[in-house]
This record gives sequence, structure tokens and C-alpha cells, in this order.
Amino acid sequence: MLAVHIEGGRVDVREVPRPARPPGFALIRLLAAGICNTDLELRRGYYGFSGTPGHEFVGEVEEADHTKLVGRRVVGEINLACGDCDWCRAGLGRHCPHRTVLGIAGHPGAFSEYLTLPEGNLHIVPEPISTERATFTEPVAAACEILDQVAIPQGGEVAVLGDGKLGLLAAQVLLAHGARVHIYGRHAAKLTIAGSCGAATFANGSLPVSRYYWVVEATGALEGLGAAIRMARPRGTVVMKSTVHGEVPLDTAPAIVNEITLVGSRCGRFEPALDLLSGGRLRVEEMISDRFPLAEAARAFERAAAGGVLKVLLDAA
Amino acid sequence: MLAVHIEGGRVDVREVPRPARPPGFALIRLLAAGICNTDLELRRGYYGFSGTPGHEFVGEVEEADHTKLVGRRVVGEINLACGDCDWCRAGLGRHCPHRTVLGIAGHPGAFSEYLTLPEGNLHIVPEPISTERATFTEPVAAACEILDQVAIPQGGEVAVLGDGKLGLLAAQVLLAHGARVHIYGRHAAKLTIAGSCGAATFANGSLPVSRYYWVVEATGALEGLGAAIRMARPRGTVVMKSTVHGEVPLDTAPAIVNEITLVGSRCGRFEPALDLLSGGRLRVEEMISDRFPLAEAARAFERAAAGGVLKVLLDAA
Repeated sequence: MLAVHIEGGRVDVREVPRPARPPGFALIRLLAAGICNTDLELRRGYYGFSGTPGHEFVGEVEEADHTKLVGRRVVGEINLACGDCDWCRAGLGRHCPHRTVLGIAGHPGAFSEYLTLPEGNLHIVPEPISTERATFTEPVAAACEILDQVAIPQGGEVAVLGDGKLGLLAAQVLLAHGARVHIYGRHAAKLTIAGSCGAATFANGSLPVSRYYWVVEATGALEGLGAAIRMARPRGTVVMKSTVHGEVPLDTAPAIVNEITLVGSRCGRFEPALDLLSGGRLRVEEMISDRFPLAEAARAFERAAAGGVLKVLLDAA
Repeated sequence: MLAVHIEGGRVDVREVPRPARPPGFALIRLLAAGICNTDLELRRGYYGFSGTPGHEFVGEVEEADHTKLVGRRVVGEINLACGDCDWCRAGLGRHCPHRTVLGIAGHPGAFSEYLTLPEGNLHIVPEPISTERATFTEPVAAACEILDQVAIPQGGEVAVLGDGKLGLLAAQVLLAHGARVHIYGRHAAKLTIAGSCGAATFANGSLPVSRYYWVVEATGALEGLGAAIRMARPRGTVVMKSTVHGEVPLDTAPAIVNEITLVGSRCGRFEPALDLLSGGRLRVEEMISDRFPLAEAARAFERAAAGGVLKVLLDAA
């Protein structure tokens, strides 16, 4: 089968053996997958990664212990937890210290004609959700995580800092929740998507100071967190969504003086994401900038890394 | 009257006019005051400060609109709020954007034979609390703020990182609350104080990783916050207590991957602090390293800045 391989900053597509299916795992044939910023970082050699990346996918189950899964269209949670530790028993396998992570750490990823995942990680995609729409399940879940962590009332005014993929999805999820969203970004075309969903849009430049009770930091930039802290009101909350590699130079004094709460936020549950994708509120299709066949993954990565580009999909043949 | 004056890194004591008492304010004769790390920072020129510092004090009211205050021993909250904004109406004058701050910003401080404060800022010191003990009210309130912000159950295991004044007070307040406290520091003599109050003490060196649900960062050092984040369990909380000047180089990725919550924490309410000081649990007297007459404030500042020293008090003549 074909599988994307990353090593030493290079992306190529190789012919490799189809993976064996361990007990309790499903063998899944890829339908489509999305390239995430994390995949671009893996290519740059972060986390010392080499192997097959990819963790945003939709596939069809070919083999499974639970035969009702066979033939079904599925998405899959990306953390492979041990199932046996305190975290797993508390329903927080996403934080299991023994976990591997699909396409990121210790488990081959989804940019491959076939992949395996524990059956317990899989969610059947409801029929009304198209395959291209379902490729957004994982990043929409990451945006939904904000609402699992922070109580934001309906009608609450939230600033989203950053108009990249995560910022746009956070804005849309917050809007669907009933929040009033102000999104700050640099790209008119990207802001337009958020605007068409009901967000008030602002070009970066002069950011307001001490204005918002809730700020979502999704810039992916070194200076984003400091800017988000300055935008938050005293006793406000900043949701830290963008992982930045290396050390961020941060003036922590405003966070302490104003007693800001900073909440680290990563992966989320798939259930609310699939619920949202079943409805019409999320306009994720507008975020697809391009799509390539799996065999052209190297070109797809180049495209995904280009300025102004949002989501790039890989389609199985 | 005598008043301490800081300017250009120098501390001197000057003869200045006694302050006028505006309506609604009390005129307070100083009994004793404590030198805080913030005072040492003001001396270094942070915040562009010049004037009379001092915000940890006990005094006796000489004049006031409310005559029941006259002759009473008082401590005072340090933020002079406008009383009229959203923050003040919500009972959070400590975050009033129009506030001045005793001895820190816009209002002359307590290292002075007389000071003024709004009568609403004052709390009468209950009789059983000695004057030297009551000088700890403000920093104990700052430690109590942790429990106002973060729900820590009785029996919960909390790490306190740093064995300075704030770390020791945080440890004692948490112990009085019923938490189990592990304090990490560099000074055997300081750790001994926490140990005698019931904390488990650990010399810095190899700090445990992902061990605690709650970590209080009170090192006052640049590297403290990163260390505290590494000590916190996934979904854990780090209370940020130490203001550090300038930018802290911080790897935020562990906070995001482990979904740590960072809570900025500053001043607290005086009521719980006076309640705690009325009881016998806090051993604050052991934290007094030295005391000087107000007229010798320059020497007192030198002493307070020396290694291994905890609280230095200034006594009015």
C-alpha cells in the first residue's frame, strides 16, 4: 500500500506492507485526510519525528472484532491510551502517560492507504456528514475542548486571536454555542469566512487592552500569548490553543497583577464535534484550500505550508 | 514627621509634613511595618517608582470621620479603588482600573510616621493578635487569595515551589486549610519553618515531573514557572504568585499538551487573613529575621535584600 513518509525534513510516498491488525483494533481503509499544522511541524523535525504522519482522517472499516463496524465510515480519536491507569479510568485517556498518538508519537499515522486504531477510538460518521466535512472532526473537537474546559455563557463576548484553521474553527464553535465572537487576524480572506458565520472581524494592528473576559489564543506565533493576556480583563481567561516550539519570551506580570487564568487546551471529545458537523452551523467546506491524491503528498505539504492557505486534504485513490 | 524616600536606587529617611486627611480617609500613626520583596523591587527602580514605599503595616487611627475608629489598631487593604466602576460594584476594587496603590502607585506608603487610607480600607486588628503578628496581614491575605481562586480540597496534595516569605506563608495557609503541603526550596533554615508547621520539605534539585494537581509557584525566579508547569499533573493547576520583571523564557508546550491551568494570583481579602492570624496555626513570628527603627530604613532595606533573610520589620519610634 502507499504511505507518506517523513524523515529529515523530506516528505515522500512509499510502497509499504499493509499493517497487521492486532486484537481489539480495526483495520481502516483511508477515504480522506487533512493536513494539520502539527504535520507541518513534524516535517520540520519537531519531536524528532520520522515515519508516517496524519491524524485527521475519515476511513472505512475493513476488518474489526466488532463486526458491526465493518463497512462503516469512521473517524478516530488520536490518543491510544493504555486503558488501565488512573487517567484512563477517569475517562481521560487523552492524558494517559503511556499513550501513543496516531501519526505523532509511536503509532503510524493516517496518511496511508490503510491504518489501524483501537475499535474504542472509533466513531461512526453519521450519514448526513460528507466525507470531506468529516475530515474536520478532530480539529473541531479540539475547538470544542474550549467549551469543555471554560464556562462561557451564551451571549458572552469572546475574542479569538488568530485567523488560521484553529482560530476559524474556534470562532465557529463558539458562535454555534451562542457566544458573541470578535476575531482578530491578518488575512482578509480568512476573516471573511468567520464574518460570514457571524463573527465581528478585526484586522490585527491595534489590539484592545483589558477588554475581554475570554480570549482564545490561536495565532501560532511567539508573541500571541502576551498579546492575548493584554487583551483579557482582570480575572479573565485566556485559552492557550497554539503550541509554539521552543521558549516564548513572556512578560508574566500582567497575568499576575490582573489575575488572569491561562488554560492550556489541546484535543477534545469527538461527540460534540460530530453533533456540530451534523448541523449546518459550521462552514468548514469554505476552509478547504486545496486537495491532492495521497500519492502527491509532497506537493500537498508544500501547498499546506504556503501563506494564506487553510486546509489541504489528501484523498485516497 | 519621618518618612522613607526611595529615588534612583537610594533609600533615605526625610523629615516631611504630616499628610492632610481628606474626607473619608483616616489619619493613621504607624506602629510597625514589614518590608516586602516588592519594596526591594521599587528600590531597584521597577515601575519607575520614587516616593515613600510600604504597604504592610499596622497603625493606630488618630483621626477619622467614623469616630469609632479613632484609637483603634488597624491594618489596611492597599488598593485605593474609585468605588464607582464595574469592578468596584462587583466587590473587586482590587482590580479597579482607576485605583492607586499604597506605597506602590500614586499613594504615599506606610514607611512613614503617619499615613492616610480610606476608612473603608481599614480592618480593626483583633486584640489577641500582636502588632508584630498583624504586620503579616497583607502577605497572609495574598496567600489566602490562592484558596479564593482555586478549589483545593482538604487532604489535597499541593506543591509549593519556593521557600521565601510568600512560599512559607502559602504553605502555612494551605496547611491551615487542611491541604497536605510539599514545599521545595533551597534554604534549610527556611524549610525548617515550613516543616515545623507540618509541611513535607524537599531541597530543590531534582523536582518531580507530572506529580501534583496543584502547584504554587513562589520562587521569584525566572525559571520558576517552567519548573512549576513540569511538576503539575495533566489538567492540574499552577498558581502564579511570583512577579518577575521583564520577560520570562517559557516553553508553553507542556502547559498546552497537558492542559495545565495557570492562575495569576495577587492580593487577597483581609478577613480570612485576620481570622487565621487570630488562631495559632500560622507561625509567622519565626519568619521575622530582623527589625529596625524607621529612622534606620536604609539599613533595614540592606538587610532585607541579603541572602537567607526573611521578614524585616520597621518599628515606629
